[in-house]
Amino acid sequence: MSIIRHQPSKIWSAAVEANGMVYLSGITADRLPASVKEQTAEVLAKIDALLAAAGSNKSKIVSCTIWVPDIRYRDELNQVWLEWVDTANLPARACVTSQLANPNLLVEIQVTAVK
Amino acid sequence: MSIIRHQPSKIWSAAVEANGMVYLSGITADRLPASVKEQTAEVLAKIDALLAAAGSNKSKIVSCTIWVPDIRYRDELNQVWLEWVDTANLPARACVTSQLANPNLLVEIQVTAVK
Amino acid sequence: MSIIRHQPSKIWSAAVEANGMVYLSGITADRLPASVKEQTAEVLAKIDALLAAAGSNKSKIVSCTIWVPDIRYRDELNQVWLEWVDTANLPARACVTSQLANPNLLVEIQVTAVK
Repeated sequence: MSIIRHQPSKIWSAAVEANGMVYLSGITADRLPASVKEQTAEVLAKIDALLAAAGSNKSKIVSCTIWVPDIRYRDELNQVWLEWVDTANLPARACVTSQLANPNLLVEIQVTAVK
Repeated sequence: MSIIRHQPSKIWSAAVEANGMVYLSGITADRLPASVKEQTAEVLAKIDALLAAAGSNKSKIVSCTIWVPDIRYRDELNQVWLEWVDTANLPARACVTSQLANPNLLVEIQVTAVK
Repeated sequence: MSIIRHQPSKIWSAAVEANGMVYLSGITADRLPASVKEQTAEVLAKIDALLAAAGSNKSKIVSCTIWVPDIRYRDELNQVWLEWVDTANLPARACVTSQLANPNLLVEIQVTAVK
């Protein structure tokens, strides 16, 4: 069984391929400060790139967890989500709240996809 | 590799079958307002129905994440959980806190099962 | 398809083997009160033991979710994490916040590994 790890930082890998699946870390924006919509767009673009590097794409996402510091941000992130997501292949999803690593961070998204 | 998606809404699928597994969204109650126990019972009944539609059942759940807005709700939800769960086949579980989508929501449950 | 469950309590299994993967519950420390570092060390030792019992080990972890009651605890937990983790095989990770089951609990960690 081979496990392939992508974009390792000091403490995690941004994506891990194993057993026919791709597991991504919770992804956040780099360009800060920025609005919920701007951060969501940046995060989803990073997810596209990570999935592509692992031989997958957004149509193959099976589940997604989204963390926001305030649940009221959900409407704004959903606007960007709906423009991005493959509407013929919607993942299972949970959107919940958490304090994020940096007070400027307004959204963190983690996905699991089939290869 | 075929991916089968169940009960798509505008933004997610309630359940996704892939790679021998079934991934469910975070499920919440529709009948609101209701007590923690009532909501937990409704959510677990929805999970039973989604697992059945995907050819699985509660004895095959491998992991479960539960979100409650206040950790003190855990005792009440556990009473309903213990009546429902297959005690010979207990999943891995984490019960943590989150603000939920609607202030009336008192529990959200996400499970992953083998098909 | 066989599913193997390890260390069942009344409400969960500490680890579940299925489909070539090992799914662990959110693990917390028993020795309380204790510092973030002490609790992280105890939790990671428990995770080592559970992975070993399921025929896996920390080099095969694909994803990890960490919950802390205050995001500022991340620096302390990361110090212990960095001494423990297999730096050649870093998992995907998300570190988010949650009220935990007991006010003395300062960290909860859940991992998924390949067998």
